[in-house]
Amino acid sequence: MIINVGIIGATGHTGEVLIELLLNHPNVRITHLFNSGKSGQDNQVISDVFPKFKHRLELVCTKPDWLKIKKDCDLVFLALPHTVSMKFVPKLLNLGKRVIDLSADYRLNNPSVYEKFYKVVHQDKTSLKEAVYGLPELYRAKIKTAKLLANPGCYPTSIILGLAPLLALNLADLSSIIIDAKSGVSGAGKKLEKEFLFSEIQGDFRAYKVNIHQHAPEINQVLSKIAGKKVDVVFVPHLLPIERGILSTIYLKKAPGAKFKAKNITDLFKKFYKNEPFIRIKAEGVFPRIKDVVKTNFCDIGVKDFGDTIIVISAIDNLLKGASAQAVQNMNIMYKIPEITGLL
Amino acid sequence: MIINVGIIGATGHTGEVLIELLLNHPNVRITHLFNSGKSGQDNQVISDVFPKFKHRLELVCTKPDWLKIKKDCDLVFLALPHTVSMKFVPKLLNLGKRVIDLSADYRLNNPSVYEKFYKVVHQDKTSLKEAVYGLPELYRAKIKTAKLLANPGCYPTSIILGLAPLLALNLADLSSIIIDAKSGVSGAGKKLEKEFLFSEIQGDFRAYKVNIHQHAPEINQVLSKIAGKKVDVVFVPHLLPIERGILSTIYLKKAPGAKFKAKNITDLFKKFYKNEPFIRIKAEGVFPRIKDVVKTNFCDIGVKDFGDTIIVISAIDNLLKGASAQAVQNMNIMYKIPEITGLL
Amino acid sequence: MIINVGIIGATGHTGEVLIELLLNHPNVRITHLFNSGKSGQDNQVISDVFPKFKHRLELVCTKPDWLKIKKDCDLVFLALPHTVSMKFVPKLLNLGKRVIDLSADYRLNNPSVYEKFYKVVHQDKTSLKEAVYGLPELYRAKIKTAKLLANPGCYPTSIILGLAPLLALNLADLSSIIIDAKSGVSGAGKKLEKEFLFSEIQGDFRAYKVNIHQHAPEINQVLSKIAGKKVDVVFVPHLLPIERGILSTIYLKKAPGAKFKAKNITDLFKKFYKNEPFIRIKAEGVFPRIKDVVKTNFCDIGVKDFGDTIIVISAIDNLLKGASAQAVQNMNIMYKIPEITGLL
Amino acid sequence: MIINVGIIGATGHTGEVLIELLLNHPNVRITHLFNSGKSGQDNQVISDVFPKFKHRLELVCTKPDWLKIKKDCDLVFLALPHTVSMKFVPKLLNLGKRVIDLSADYRLNNPSVYEKFYKVVHQDKTSLKEAVYGLPELYRAKIKTAKLLANPGCYPTSIILGLAPLLALNLADLSSIIIDAKSGVSGAGKKLEKEFLFSEIQGDFRAYKVNIHQHAPEINQVLSKIAGKKVDVVFVPHLLPIERGILSTIYLKKAPGAKFKAKNITDLFKKFYKNEPFIRIKAEGVFPRIKDVVKTNFCDIGVKDFGDTIIVISAIDNLLKGASAQAVQNMNIMYKIPEITGLL
Repeated sequence: MIINVGIIGATGHTGEVLIELLLNHPNVRITHLFNSGKSGQDNQVISDVFPKFKHRLELVCTKPDWLKIKKDCDLVFLALPHTVSMKFVPKLLNLGKRVIDLSADYRLNNPSVYEKFYKVVHQDKTSLKEAVYGLPELYRAKIKTAKLLANPGCYPTSIILGLAPLLALNLADLSSIIIDAKSGVSGAGKKLEKEFLFSEIQGDFRAYKVNIHQHAPEINQVLSKIAGKKVDVVFVPHLLPIERGILSTIYLKKAPGAKFKAKNITDLFKKFYKNEPFIRIKAEGVFPRIKDVVKTNFCDIGVKDFGDTIIVISAIDNLLKGASAQAVQNMNIMYKIPEITGLL
Repeated sequence: MIINVGIIGATGHTGEVLIELLLNHPNVRITHLFNSGKSGQDNQVISDVFPKFKHRLELVCTKPDWLKIKKDCDLVFLALPHTVSMKFVPKLLNLGKRVIDLSADYRLNNPSVYEKFYKVVHQDKTSLKEAVYGLPELYRAKIKTAKLLANPGCYPTSIILGLAPLLALNLADLSSIIIDAKSGVSGAGKKLEKEFLFSEIQGDFRAYKVNIHQHAPEINQVLSKIAGKKVDVVFVPHLLPIERGILSTIYLKKAPGAKFKAKNITDLFKKFYKNEPFIRIKAEGVFPRIKDVVKTNFCDIGVKDFGDTIIVISAIDNLLKGASAQAVQNMNIMYKIPEITGLL
Repeated sequence: MIINVGIIGATGHTGEVLIELLLNHPNVRITHLFNSGKSGQDNQVISDVFPKFKHRLELVCTKPDWLKIKKDCDLVFLALPHTVSMKFVPKLLNLGKRVIDLSADYRLNNPSVYEKFYKVVHQDKTSLKEAVYGLPELYRAKIKTAKLLANPGCYPTSIILGLAPLLALNLADLSSIIIDAKSGVSGAGKKLEKEFLFSEIQGDFRAYKVNIHQHAPEINQVLSKIAGKKVDVVFVPHLLPIERGILSTIYLKKAPGAKFKAKNITDLFKKFYKNEPFIRIKAEGVFPRIKDVVKTNFCDIGVKDFGDTIIVISAIDNLLKGASAQAVQNMNIMYKIPEITGLL
Repeated sequence: MIINVGIIGATGHTGEVLIELLLNHPNVRITHLFNSGKSGQDNQVISDVFPKFKHRLELVCTKPDWLKIKKDCDLVFLALPHTVSMKFVPKLLNLGKRVIDLSADYRLNNPSVYEKFYKVVHQDKTSLKEAVYGLPELYRAKIKTAKLLANPGCYPTSIILGLAPLLALNLADLSSIIIDAKSGVSGAGKKLEKEFLFSEIQGDFRAYKVNIHQHAPEINQVLSKIAGKKVDVVFVPHLLPIERGILSTIYLKKAPGAKFKAKNITDLFKKFYKNEPFIRIKAEGVFPRIKDVVKTNFCDIGVKDFGDTIIVISAIDNLLKGASAQAVQNMNIMYKIPEITGLL
């Protein structure tokens, strides 16, 4: 089987990583690369934008071209900034194309929450209703038939996977969840801002958007669905002086009277994820590190029960399981290809 | 005034930083450098051990020599590994020397707690009773007359300074304190272990000693004294891919019925530390970063009240305010020299 | 076609990278992993040694087992330290196995040169005579039928590829060649030595083995063959504070009366390498960077003629084109598989 | 003695480092800080620009104010971009102020060379004639009485100090000099350009301005003066993924018939620099590293004679001996203060 794929937003950081993955995917033909369509953008050979693609891919990246999309694409990836994707989605769905959107535009069910955190009115509430949240470990069945897939954020992926077993089994005091997350710089894309200069990042470490990050509502929305009750976490992201990787350290209290049906909490996690190809639970008392997941689609999780408090630590590559590789995993599910294809 | 200073343990990492500071101190003459006295150690010119001291200090580092100490030292710094310091302290005190110990040997009042975390029987319970804990912001009066000063640990310094105002004013729910701390690699000294190789650290990030770190009892001991009640924190340290610096992110709930006598919590911190030369409170809503404190003796603190939860973030240089520079600050206090001498 | 592959030395750094590549190779089945056979080594599941292989490869790594090799391996990779490989090669060849040796043991034709630089007597001069030097761009024809392939060193690969066109066309003053090379830390494997600690490497840069590095004779041997005359280069390697990558800056004078049969020297390089899948020549006046070749098998080369002096800069990933991926490229050639298989 | 000092360009990177040094200098009072006077710049408290100066310096940085300079400054440092300094110098000299200019504006004697490399017409040829090149090891006598001091470039400092002994003693083949230099990122100041983002620098290494860097004419000018003959070096700078430090690897042939009047070339260097407080010659066969000079004003030099070829390696901190600390060293000389004051 060959899927004909187009990418809109191919010159950004997520686009770059996505191209790399799709070049290695045996069931994919990249038919077209498009920029975001902003006026002033020129046609560019992709290997001039990213010299590492020389000898591997020489497609020209042009403005989005509806005729080409109609004719040559089964599936379109949107690797666009937030608030830009929603300009393309309605027309793509109209043309009968399946869409995987890597932005935040279709992740939040409630447009007013979106508007609060992204500071812009949502322009496509119709498609929003049919978007499927693309976390395979929780929503694989729905993903299979999705027309519009909202690929999860990087922090939410690492955090939801770390908490899902506890919330699904009613073991957590929902009012107690504190998430101290740390991300490499690539999470911010390649923004040309002073704070992302080498001289600012190297040797430094700091928190940012303390308890006001735009991923908090996404985390709360999904955790609330799993728990069946409103969840409102404390969430503090920090910036690591590395390129790739997120490690989330999660603290929570046990639900009053919580009883584990397992010899320990690690076993409970192992059972919950026992058929998942990309979740690896560390042995009891062992916690994950970023190095083991960088350049992979794995989410490594360690968990330990300290009596009152449970500590969960999860690690992913923010650009892969937290973005482009999870998008490919979703594509595999949507097209009934073995889920690990092109990802191991 | 000139203080004649000897250093035992001069060839270690803390010793190196201490020498650097003392070379710039107008009231100090370094009279002797000693190694730890382990058999097999040779005499070494200090600038052969640390080439950066060439042209600056050419003293020979020998085995500890009691005659030289007796004759030429007013004050002895112990820059030794834990469990080694206590072999030297009794005799130094006997000789009438003042001692600043940078190890953990005299920080914990209760020898059985020491023995539990450091896996060795405490051999000098007599001196332990008269040791003064050298955190100037809390114990300046006692430091002035100390014979034996126990210089605080790096994590405890950053954490206690971040929590002291809230605990002293009874504003914290003492059962709710969670500390997610991150340290540069120099905290581990220069141990020759695989986990500290460049290839292991660079690009990585991980937690270690999750909730079982030996600094936890030191933190609990001091916080309990401040609060007047038993405090038992959750403490998870992490390893940053940088050389220097600790950033501690602290989460706590407000004490039931807590009322602030200040327009906001930031103001309360500013008042608490208003005469402290080395504490800098960030403006409301601003949090510290490691870069601003590296190579300084400052502790930068940011704090914000999020309703239920208070978040405090503090940053220090672990080798300076967290070790050698705090030791110099303590020396300044002990000898009635202006406290900032050699440190600004 | 399926090649049954064994690896001796699987727990080292080169072995780790080789496994990663072979796991993604459609024509390879890894049948056995062996350690180096030193006494005291235990059997280990490879995913316990390298947690990143969890869920991907769960083979047990044992002592070398001749029965298993005889029965289950077509080809054996030796990912062993220098001087260890030659203990295995004769027997492997005797069993009729093809061998790709990633050590230096079979690279130098003259055993006395080997003995001078590696400080040990060569124990297998017989096999040495039939070893083929595995630089595909120069020796593809011989590689096809090789029984014993000596995989080139990392520095030599980057340097020989940068100089081959000029020497093959008699354009270089052979007495003038100066090579200033810079390598990431992984070139030294994962040696547990003080100089490779994070605290020593981070923020530092230095030369080492100045003009006495053991790769110099390998470089001189191959360049001399290309030039048809004795070449003796000046070679100074340096240690970069990065994990992967080598950039070699090469300076040379033009041969007296040298005439280029090309509009410029860049064109000459492009023609020389025009059918090479893994050589990329930068546009005139543009020079390569390490980032573009890291995690690839490419060698990027930039060259410019400054009148008297020609400057060539080449970049590779030392662990890939400089070691394991070049070994896979050689395997592809030996087994008549398309040369890029598993490498793009 | 107290020198009243003003700084124009205090908010730049060089300004920041200069302030740090002057705060620790016992003979300096910083009276005024000025920005570069570009329209649109606001008054700023310096500790808001650089939070690390909080509690240490709270001066307001304003537009240059001639009345304040006239009244309150003995000496003015210009920490300005190239081509901006020359707008201030004539008036400052007119007011009778001594000036230390850290830009390139007064380094090149020949304005047409300046114009070729800095792409702008030199506007102050009068002052240019009386500028003194501030390399203390070579020009200490002239520096004592300088009104206008041109502080050397960072690359030139490291390179000229490495070559001066050989050229002064006529031991070098002047046509053979090749300089392969490597600098940390701070050499580029804090320019907001894509190439200086953390994601571009970290893990990368590359050459830039290959043999066309604007420091080449400065190097050639000074070396030619020392040698008494025209020198024209090959100079290739590279960008290291570190913040601070330059290491220059220099290759040259011996002059025909050169005879050393020393037991080896290392001794010759030691004699040449025997009274220099900031030059440290490594033992024979040992070469310098960046770590030993970072945060110091030292230049460490290693040299070895390999028969035909001599290799010299020198290391400095580009922001200190290569910029601000050398400026302070020059100030000390100009004001007859002990040369090491505030620098050791």
